[in-house]
Amino acid sequence: MGSTAASGVVDKGVDFANYFCTYGFLYHQKEMLSDRVRMDAYFNAIFENKHHFQGKTVLDVGTGSGILAIWSAQAGARKVYAVEATKMAEHALELVKANKLQNVVEVIEGSMEDVTLPEKVDVIISEWMGYFLLRESMLDSVICARDRWLKPNGVMYPSHARMWMAPIRSGLVDQKMSDYEGAMEDWRSFVDETKTFYGVDMSVLTNPFTEEQKKYYLQTSLWNNLHPDQVIGTCMVVKEIDCLTTTVNDIRNVHASISSSITEENMRFCGFGGWFDVHFRGSNKNPAQHEIELTTAPSEDYGTHWGQQVFLLHPPLRVQRGDDLILQFSMSRSKDNHRLMEVDLSCEMRQSGKSLPAFQKKFFIE
Amino acid sequence: MGSTAASGVVDKGVDFANYFCTYGFLYHQKEMLSDRVRMDAYFNAIFENKHHFQGKTVLDVGTGSGILAIWSAQAGARKVYAVEATKMAEHALELVKANKLQNVVEVIEGSMEDVTLPEKVDVIISEWMGYFLLRESMLDSVICARDRWLKPNGVMYPSHARMWMAPIRSGLVDQKMSDYEGAMEDWRSFVDETKTFYGVDMSVLTNPFTEEQKKYYLQTSLWNNLHPDQVIGTCMVVKEIDCLTTTVNDIRNVHASISSSITEENMRFCGFGGWFDVHFRGSNKNPAQHEIELTTAPSEDYGTHWGQQVFLLHPPLRVQRGDDLILQFSMSRSKDNHRLMEVDLSCEMRQSGKSLPAFQKKFFIE
Repeated sequence: MGSTAASGVVDKGVDFANYFCTYGFLYHQKEMLSDRVRMDAYFNAIFENKHHFQGKTVLDVGTGSGILAIWSAQAGARKVYAVEATKMAEHALELVKANKLQNVVEVIEGSMEDVTLPEKVDVIISEWMGYFLLRESMLDSVICARDRWLKPNGVMYPSHARMWMAPIRSGLVDQKMSDYEGAMEDWRSFVDETKTFYGVDMSVLTNPFTEEQKKYYLQTSLWNNLHPDQVIGTCMVVKEIDCLTTTVNDIRNVHASISSSITEENMRFCGFGGWFDVHFRGSNKNPAQHEIELTTAPSEDYGTHWGQQVFLLHPPLRVQRGDDLILQFSMSRSKDNHRLMEVDLSCEMRQSGKSLPAFQKKFFIE
Repeated sequence: MGSTAASGVVDKGVDFANYFCTYGFLYHQKEMLSDRVRMDAYFNAIFENKHHFQGKTVLDVGTGSGILAIWSAQAGARKVYAVEATKMAEHALELVKANKLQNVVEVIEGSMEDVTLPEKVDVIISEWMGYFLLRESMLDSVICARDRWLKPNGVMYPSHARMWMAPIRSGLVDQKMSDYEGAMEDWRSFVDETKTFYGVDMSVLTNPFTEEQKKYYLQTSLWNNLHPDQVIGTCMVVKEIDCLTTTVNDIRNVHASISSSITEENMRFCGFGGWFDVHFRGSNKNPAQHEIELTTAPSEDYGTHWGQQVFLLHPPLRVQRGDDLILQFSMSRSKDNHRLMEVDLSCEMRQSGKSLPAFQKKFFIE
């Protein structure tokens, strides 16, 4: 909050305090390393496509504890550069040594943007995905690494990424509204008591307090592991990214005109779920032998630590099977912190060909 | 974490991201303004000592929503300078205007260290106290303000502060040990599974993970509202501060040799509770008409948002009435963040004149 100058220039110390510090904890690394969907996808992507690694040079952007660098080496890489901005680099080095790969894996502590490698690489591998794909803006560092260090025919791991949304039903809509109403109830008592007991009229702050609480309870997207049954309409692709060609400009602002049809009878339309998938396909010139997908879609059995982001509507709307939602989606980075996002949704609804009232809502991915 | 250079130089942007940002939320202001013990103490200190304010100039350091500045004006101050580093300054200004005090209270957005006032002041008022008094290190800014802006015979509000500790019993000791053991159990399964399913031996990270989890679960002091019955020995004054004369050097490191006698029969000695009180006594030359105390000691009826900080011993020790605890207390600021603290405790115990095994423990106030 309030951490980045309005100029949009990122202060590295502030960014470290706000962002990187989390990744310095083994507890956090363990959470990611315990995500079986994530682990299986990268493991299979590497070991079912050894031809991309055998005798090759690899760069792992944000290696964390070093797992992807180690797998790359175990799959036969000649050399792996494992770059990590936090002190986790020291643990990565220990792990590399304990697994007897110090002749292949070189751990480099530093931010990707500042690091100089002695050679270009055949493969860039990275687990850069944040909530709803782009939160954390870590793909920027991968793009920077690609432009500087990937050989002309090099391969990106993952090679492709997609953002998804779908209309959902969710009891969270009631819970959050009730939390919000409770907070406002408290505020009103507080204003009364402060006037009565302490002679100060706080009511002028009611509007800004309302805005603050609305943002917190009603406009901030929520982490949730949705059940597939909660998805009540067709899924929409919001954005497709080719990791070999995308630019920072291409992902800084995401705009989409998308639509979904309600697939369930007489439902409460409570908002949207947002998630992502990534694919490991290699490149056109150097394709994967086995394409692997990592999806964070709602799933009964294969939840991930990313879950889904839920964007709630207050109040929810009643919809019928066959209703169409026509959505204008716009996502940009928060002015105060380029790793957080703001989403503007504008939605028209058509029921049996007739237009229903449209709505617009702003959300924050914090 | 990792936010301040080892040199000890504070990066202002980082400090803002780590610390000040919290105070930019009205929700947080409301929590402080709803603390009746805190509010009553400052309210009474001001309105029962109007002679300190009538026709005088006042500086409020870290005014937040502006309450102390407004009260000072209502008590008759000629001019109040209300300095606030966060955007909360804008709300303070609104509040001042709504209470028709804009001719008396001047809200200044900026950090105290950078602000220039047009005159020296008769009173410096501030609510600068953090957990266990000194967490947040905000007293530094009050001292800086005092040295630059307080008139020779000026008065500090509060005028005095004390840190307290006492031996306690607490079920938290079992809960935290069980949390820690659960985390380590999880870790062992994680190491096994990562080896079995993904071919990587993580066991080299067991020691650093253990250290990290011990620090988190067993060495980090806890916020708690203790019941007075949980205090099992005499209370010890750890530090006394005269706000008129103390220096940053005097509070940067706190050392004390203190002792406590167990006052209860056959008790589990689970650690120490730490709290503070402050007093509003005016100065020798300009004393208060009514001295006011604000205490955050364990209390059945008068809990505060500060609660107490609890420093737990693992395992707890069995003690008897009359046992003596002789304690070496040492508190310094965290190298990585000058607003957080590290505490070293070294404790000898004597039972019926005989020495029991001594113990030492390091704690973190985060």
